[in-house]
Amino acid sequence: MDLIDLYLEEDLGEGDITSQALVDDREGRASITAGQDGVMAGLEEAREVFRRTGCECRAMVSDGDTVVMDQEVMEIIGPLKGLLAGERLALNFMMRMSGIATMTRQAVDSCRKANPNVVVAATRKTTPGFRRYEKKAVRLGGGDPHRFGLDDAFLIKDNHLTVVGSVPHAVHLAQAYSFGKKVEVEVESLEAAQEAARAGADIIMLDNMTPAQARECYLAIKAMDPGITVEVSGGIGAKDAKSYARYADVISMGALTHSSPAMHFSMHIRERSVP
Amino acid sequence: MDLIDLYLEEDLGEGDITSQALVDDREGRASITAGQDGVMAGLEEAREVFRRTGCECRAMVSDGDTVVMDQEVMEIIGPLKGLLAGERLALNFMMRMSGIATMTRQAVDSCRKANPNVVVAATRKTTPGFRRYEKKAVRLGGGDPHRFGLDDAFLIKDNHLTVVGSVPHAVHLAQAYSFGKKVEVEVESLEAAQEAARAGADIIMLDNMTPAQARECYLAIKAMDPGITVEVSGGIGAKDAKSYARYADVISMGALTHSSPAMHFSMHIRERSVP
Amino acid sequence: MDLIDLYLEEDLGEGDITSQALVDDREGRASITAGQDGVMAGLEEAREVFRRTGCECRAMVSDGDTVVMDQEVMEIIGPLKGLLAGERLALNFMMRMSGIATMTRQAVDSCRKANPNVVVAATRKTTPGFRRYEKKAVRLGGGDPHRFGLDDAFLIKDNHLTVVGSVPHAVHLAQAYSFGKKVEVEVESLEAAQEAARAGADIIMLDNMTPAQARECYLAIKAMDPGITVEVSGGIGAKDAKSYARYADVISMGALTHSSPAMHFSMHIRERSVP
Amino acid sequence: MDLIDLYLEEDLGEGDITSQALVDDREGRASITAGQDGVMAGLEEAREVFRRTGCECRAMVSDGDTVVMDQEVMEIIGPLKGLLAGERLALNFMMRMSGIATMTRQAVDSCRKANPNVVVAATRKTTPGFRRYEKKAVRLGGGDPHRFGLDDAFLIKDNHLTVVGSVPHAVHLAQAYSFGKKVEVEVESLEAAQEAARAGADIIMLDNMTPAQARECYLAIKAMDPGITVEVSGGIGAKDAKSYARYADVISMGALTHSSPAMHFSMHIRERSVP
Amino acid sequence: MDLIDLYLEEDLGEGDITSQALVDDREGRASITAGQDGVMAGLEEAREVFRRTGCECRAMVSDGDTVVMDQEVMEIIGPLKGLLAGERLALNFMMRMSGIATMTRQAVDSCRKANPNVVVAATRKTTPGFRRYEKKAVRLGGGDPHRFGLDDAFLIKDNHLTVVGSVPHAVHLAQAYSFGKKVEVEVESLEAAQEAARAGADIIMLDNMTPAQARECYLAIKAMDPGITVEVSGGIGAKDAKSYARYADVISMGALTHSSPAMHFSMHIRERSVP
Amino acid sequence: MDLIDLYLEEDLGEGDITSQALVDDREGRASITAGQDGVMAGLEEAREVFRRTGCECRAMVSDGDTVVMDQEVMEIIGPLKGLLAGERLALNFMMRMSGIATMTRQAVDSCRKANPNVVVAATRKTTPGFRRYEKKAVRLGGGDPHRFGLDDAFLIKDNHLTVVGSVPHAVHLAQAYSFGKKVEVEVESLEAAQEAARAGADIIMLDNMTPAQARECYLAIKAMDPGITVEVSGGIGAKDAKSYARYADVISMGALTHSSPAMHFSMHIRERSVP
Repeated sequence: MDLIDLYLEEDLGEGDITSQALVDDREGRASITAGQDGVMAGLEEAREVFRRTGCECRAMVSDGDTVVMDQEVMEIIGPLKGLLAGERLALNFMMRMSGIATMTRQAVDSCRKANPNVVVAATRKTTPGFRRYEKKAVRLGGGDPHRFGLDDAFLIKDNHLTVVGSVPHAVHLAQAYSFGKKVEVEVESLEAAQEAARAGADIIMLDNMTPAQARECYLAIKAMDPGITVEVSGGIGAKDAKSYARYADVISMGALTHSSPAMHFSMHIRERSVP
Repeated sequence: MDLIDLYLEEDLGEGDITSQALVDDREGRASITAGQDGVMAGLEEAREVFRRTGCECRAMVSDGDTVVMDQEVMEIIGPLKGLLAGERLALNFMMRMSGIATMTRQAVDSCRKANPNVVVAATRKTTPGFRRYEKKAVRLGGGDPHRFGLDDAFLIKDNHLTVVGSVPHAVHLAQAYSFGKKVEVEVESLEAAQEAARAGADIIMLDNMTPAQARECYLAIKAMDPGITVEVSGGIGAKDAKSYARYADVISMGALTHSSPAMHFSMHIRERSVP
Repeated sequence: MDLIDLYLEEDLGEGDITSQALVDDREGRASITAGQDGVMAGLEEAREVFRRTGCECRAMVSDGDTVVMDQEVMEIIGPLKGLLAGERLALNFMMRMSGIATMTRQAVDSCRKANPNVVVAATRKTTPGFRRYEKKAVRLGGGDPHRFGLDDAFLIKDNHLTVVGSVPHAVHLAQAYSFGKKVEVEVESLEAAQEAARAGADIIMLDNMTPAQARECYLAIKAMDPGITVEVSGGIGAKDAKSYARYADVISMGALTHSSPAMHFSMHIRERSVP
Repeated sequence: MDLIDLYLEEDLGEGDITSQALVDDREGRASITAGQDGVMAGLEEAREVFRRTGCECRAMVSDGDTVVMDQEVMEIIGPLKGLLAGERLALNFMMRMSGIATMTRQAVDSCRKANPNVVVAATRKTTPGFRRYEKKAVRLGGGDPHRFGLDDAFLIKDNHLTVVGSVPHAVHLAQAYSFGKKVEVEVESLEAAQEAARAGADIIMLDNMTPAQARECYLAIKAMDPGITVEVSGGIGAKDAKSYARYADVISMGALTHSSPAMHFSMHIRERSVP
Repeated sequence: MDLIDLYLEEDLGEGDITSQALVDDREGRASITAGQDGVMAGLEEAREVFRRTGCECRAMVSDGDTVVMDQEVMEIIGPLKGLLAGERLALNFMMRMSGIATMTRQAVDSCRKANPNVVVAATRKTTPGFRRYEKKAVRLGGGDPHRFGLDDAFLIKDNHLTVVGSVPHAVHLAQAYSFGKKVEVEVESLEAAQEAARAGADIIMLDNMTPAQARECYLAIKAMDPGITVEVSGGIGAKDAKSYARYADVISMGALTHSSPAMHFSMHIRERSVP
Repeated sequence: MDLIDLYLEEDLGEGDITSQALVDDREGRASITAGQDGVMAGLEEAREVFRRTGCECRAMVSDGDTVVMDQEVMEIIGPLKGLLAGERLALNFMMRMSGIATMTRQAVDSCRKANPNVVVAATRKTTPGFRRYEKKAVRLGGGDPHRFGLDDAFLIKDNHLTVVGSVPHAVHLAQAYSFGKKVEVEVESLEAAQEAARAGADIIMLDNMTPAQARECYLAIKAMDPGITVEVSGGIGAKDAKSYARYADVISMGALTHSSPAMHFSMHIRERSVP
C-alpha cells in the first residue's frame, strides 16, 4: 500500500455509502475547474487517484502552468462511482499543492526582480505524511525543495551547537562523517558566520537576521570565499523575501508549506451516461 | 507501522546524519515554547513522537488550552539524539494542529456571539494522510469534525443529484440503504430545501448562499420541521461566518483545515547532560 | 498490500509446492459448482483472487442470486498453477459469504411474512479481519450491515450506562458530541425505553426481551414518537426472529455472522490445456 | 502492523465515538463470563488485545480448559475507554475460537471412544485472514491443525491428478522436488489407494468414501505398508466422524473451521472507578 | 507493498535526483551483459523490477542457464528514467542470485561425480529479508532449498536436545505434535545417530563430522533402515563437499547463501531515443 | 511492521513448530560465541531481535570491536522458546554484518598504510532489503557507506552521459537542480576528468582505471583544484585497494557488500532453567 492508497483509504473507509445507495453502474464524464488564478499542481496525482478508482483523465494544462479562474483543467471519464470516489482526494491534492506552488511562484517572481539568480527554498516544516507532495509543489512553483529529511544533508543548527560547543568542531565532525554530503551551518551572528566559513562549511544559513544584518554577513562570507552558498532563513514571509534577495544565494521560507492558503478547484459531472 | 511511524520515517529516512556525526550518547533536556498566542494542539502527538525516539515529556498545558507567545508548553528529557530526531515532527504536529485549533476557536467565538448554540464544523478538505489530526484539532478548537470519510454518513451533493435526478428519490434511496445513518442533502435554492425537508432529510446544507438567502431557507425549513438540522456552507471564511450564525444550526468551513496558517513553536535544548 | 493480498499470502506462504513440483506452465479451464442450494456471494471476490493469480473468470450468476445444488457458478481460465493457487481462497470467500447470505435471506424472508417493512441487520460479532466481507454478504442476503465499527454511529450500551449513570445524560452527551450521527440506546426495560425516547434517541434497541416484552415497548415508544426506530436484539436465532417481526423496525442478529454454517462449493479442472 | 493491530483498526476506525462522547479518563474493572458450556480459547489473544488498549488482564482459566455457563473467565483492569475499545475484538476472538475448540473437542472425544489413537484434523477451509487463530483453536480442542498453507506439505488432490495423469508420476515428482516434506495423496478408490501406497506416498487421504469403503481401503493400505498414514476426509460432520474412527489414523473435518457455531461470552463493567 | 516494492523504495527513496535533473521523458533501450561465466538467476525478478519502473524486457537466456562473460542476457526498453531507476535493483538481484546459483551448480556437479543421486541443500543462513530469492537461486543452481522457516518441518538440533534431554523423547514429541511433517534430528555421534534411527526419525543430520565419521554413521543408519534420509552438514565448503558425497543422501551447505561471491553484470544504455 | 519484524516473520512463518512441540515455558540462558577472528557487528540488531522474542541480552563486546575465535560475545536470558525463535535471525545479522565489517577493516587498514587519510567506501551493490544494515556494517569497519539511495546525492554515471551527451552540461543541470547536494561525476579518461573538474564537479570518480591511470588523473585534478574529492572505483578487490590508496581520497569497493564471506557465530543454551 503506497501513500496514494493510504490517502484513498483515509477518505473511503468502508466505502462511499452515498454513491452505493444512489448511483448505478453507468459511466459518466466530469470536469475540474479552477476557482481562482494560480499555478497548477497536483494534476499528475489526480490522474493517479482517478486511475485507481477506475477512471481515465485528460488534462488541459500541465503541472506548473499558470491557470485562471473558471478555467477547465481536467476532464475525467469513467464509472460514476469512480468519479465520486476519487473526487475529494483529487481536489485535495490540487488545492493544497497548487496553493503551495502559487505562493512559491509569487515569492520567486518577487525575489528574482531583486536578484535574478536567487533560489527560493522550502523547509522541513511540512504536513506530516504529505511532505513528498508539498516539496514537489515547491519545485513546480520554481523553488528548491531543500532537504527531504534528516538523512539528506548536514544542517548544523543552534541545538547541535549547544551540544557540540564550537562551530569548527561541528563542521569537522560532519566532514569526517561523510565525504559525499555538503555541510550547512546555521548562524545567528557575523562572528559565527565567519567562523563557519573558516571551518569549511559549504553553505551558511543566516537565521533570523534583518536584511541589513544579512547583507553584512553575506558580504563578509563572500569576501572570504565566494564559493560558499549563503542562505537566509527564519520567519521570512512572502512580503519580506525580496528585501533579502539581493544579498543571498538562497532564501528559505517555511511559510511556503506551513501557511500557504489552498487554491480552489471543483469538480462537476457533465454527463451521467457515456456510451 | 502506524501513521506516526510513517511520519517519523518520512523525516528520518536512513537516519539523522547530523546528529550521528555530532552528538554523543548523553541525555539532555529541551523545552518547547509557543512563538505566538493561540490554542494549543498536538501535545499528545508530540509526546508520542518523543516516546518513540526514546524521550519522556512533561506538558505544562493541555491540548485545547489557550497559550501565549513565549510560553513554555512542554519539557522533554531523553537522549540528545532522540530529542533531535523527534524535534521537527513534534513541532510540525503542533504548528499545524494549533493553527487549525486557533482558527476554529476564533470562528466559534465569533459565531457564538450571534448564536450561542451554533456548531462550527470542518469539511473533508484536509491534507491527504493527516485528516485524523486535522479533525482532532478542529475538535480541540471547539468545532465539530463532521464526516471523517465517505463511509460516515450520507451527504447528497450536487453531483449525486445530477445523477439521480430528484431530491426525494435520492433521500428515499439513502434511507432504504441504511437505517442507522442520518441523511444530509446539499441544496442551492429555497425550492430544493423545501423538497429535501418534505422528503425527510435529517440535515439540509445550504450551499453558497448569501446570509439573506440562508436566513430565508432556514426559516422555511424550521417552519416545516424544527427537528431538521440546517447547515450553511460554501467558501465561508472566518470573517463571514458570524453573519450566517443567527440562522444556522451548523456552519461548516473548509478553510479551517485547508487554509489556516501554522502557529509557531520552537524547541531549544536547555541542558546537554542530565544525570 | 490490501486484504486480498494478505489472504493470498496466508494461503500461499512461500509458494504452492505441490503445483511447483507437479504442474507445468500450460493454461487450463476450471469450473466452480455449488454443493447445495443457497444465496450466491463472493463471486466478485473470487474473480479478484483469480485475477491476482493470473486467471480470468466468467460468472454464470451474480452475487445475490439464488443457486441450486450442482449449478455451475463460475468458469476460470488461466495458467494451471494460477487456477490451483487461487482455488482455496476463492472457495473460502464463496463458502463463508454465501453461508451468511443464505442465512440472512432466510431470516429476511421469514420476518417479512410477518412485517413486510422490517429490516434484518447484522452486528459487530464478526470474524476479525473479515468483517468487510461478512457485512457485504449480509447485504447480498437482503439485510442491513449495521455499524461497521465503533466510529460509525453512537450505540449506548449497558456498559456505557454503568459508567455514565443515566440514559438522558448519555443521550445528551452523544448529541452534543456530533450533530451528524444518529444516537442509538440499548435498553432492557420499558422504563429505560421510555426514558430514551424522551431524551431524544433516534433508535432504541430492545435487548434480550421476549416477543411480548418487545411488543409492549414497541407500542409505548411509537406512541411517544413514531419517528423513533425500534430495534430488537439479543441472541435472536433464525427461528425466533419472525416472532419479533411484527413489532419491530429492525431485528439484529449476531448469528448471521458468528454462527452461519458455510455453503459448499468445489472447483474442478475441466481442461488441462487451453490453446 | 500485525494482525491484531489490523483487527483493532477494523473495529475502531477513526475511534470509538460513543466512548469519546460519554466516558471520562477513569480506570475501571470488567469481567468476561461464558454464556454457555464449552472449551475455552482466545484468552491469550484477548489479553493481547486489551494490552494494546492499555489494560491488564487476569485470566481465571487457561486456553484449552473446559468452562461452564456463567463462569467468569477473565478480569480486566484499565482505563474505561480501553475496556470498551477492546471489548468487541476480545469477545470475537473468544467466541469464534472457543466455538471451534468446542466442536473439535467433541469430535475428538467421540472418535477416541472408537479409536484412542485417532487424530482429528482441520483443513484449509478457514476464514480468510483468521486462519492462524482458527488452526490454534483446533489444537486447543485437541485436534491437529494440518497444513497451514500450500507451502507446508505436498497434498496431491484430484485436480493435480487431472493435470499430471498418474498417481505414481505425481508422487515421484513430489519426492524429487523436496527431500524434507511428506507426500500425501488424495484418492477416491481402492485402486488409486493401492497405487499411491506402491508409489511411496507417506499419507493417503481417502476422500468422500463411506465408512465401509474407507475400512476396505485402510486395511488394504496397512497390509501393504503399516507405516503409511491413512486419513479420511470429505464432508465428514461431527456425527459421522466416529463411524470412520476405527479404520483411520486421521480424520480431517472442514466443518471444524467453516461451520462451527460461536460460543457465547459477554463482558460487564463491574467497577467504574478503580483507585 | 510486497518485497519488490520495498526493495525499490530502499533504493529510490524520495526519487532518483540525478535522473530527474538530467534525463528527459524519451524512451530508450538498454542491455545487460554478464561480466563473468556462471549460472544465470534473477532474470524473472529483474523483469518484474523494470515492469514496475515502466519498462519491458526481453531475456536472451532463461534463469538456470549457463552464461559466459560478455554475453548479453537481457534487453530493456522503456522511459530512460525507468531504465535508470530499475538498474541497480535489477543488477543486485542478478548479481547475488547468480552468485548463489553458480556456487550451487559447482557443488552439485562436483558431488554428483561421486554420487549421482546426492542432493545439495541450503540452510537458513541467509540474508534477512532476501531468503525467498536466495532459496530460489539455490534451486536454479540444482540444489534443494531445505526449510524456508521454522514452521516448515521439525529439525531437532543440539539446543533442543539440551532442553529435552533425550533423542527418543524429542522425536516422539515431534511425531505427536503433527502427523504431516517429517522429523529430522541433528546428531554429533554414532550413538546419537543410532538412537535417532531407532526412535523413528525420518531424516538424520550428521553435524560437524569428518568424511570418515560420516561414512560410518551413514552405513550404520542405512543398515538399520534404508528408508531414513541421511544428511551431512556443518561448515562444509565447496571443496570438501564431494568427499562426503558418496555416503550421504543430502549435503547441506550454509556457504551457498552466506558466503557466495556475487557474479558480475552491468547495464548499458544502447539507444537514447526509441521511436 | 518494520524491517526486523519482517525478518522475524520470514523465519518464523506460522511459528517454530519444533520448539512448540518440544520446549516448555521455562526460562533459560544462552551464549553466542565467535567462530573465527574478525570485527564484531550486529550486536545491536541481535539485542533487538531477542527483545522482540521476549529475551534480554548482555553483550560482552561492542559493535566495532575486534573479537577472536571462541570469544563469547553475548549472553541471552529469557524463555527457551524465545531464545530459539530469535537464534537464527540474530546469528544471520551477526554473520553477515561482521563479515562485511571485517572485510572493510582489512581494506581500511591496508589502504591507510599507503595513505593515512584515504576513505574506504561502499557502493549500492547490496542485498535488496538489507542495505541499511550492510551500510552500517561498513561504517563499523571504519568505512564510509556512501550513497544510501538514488535520492542521496548526484552521481553522474556513464549511462547518464550517454543520455545527456556532455559532462559540463550534466554537471550544470545537476547544480541547477539542487543547491544542497554535491555533484559527483564518473569518468573513464583523463580528458573526461579534466572536463568534470572544469565544470565544477565536487567529486570525480575514476572508474575502472589501473593504478597508474588513476594516479595521473588524481594529480591532474588536484592541480586544477585541490578541493575536488577524487574517488577510485570499479571492481577493486581487497588486495588491489592499497595500490590505489596513495593517489585517491576515496576508494569505493562493491565487494565489501556483495562478496564478503560471512563470519561464523553460534549460539548454545547454557542453562535450561533460570530461576
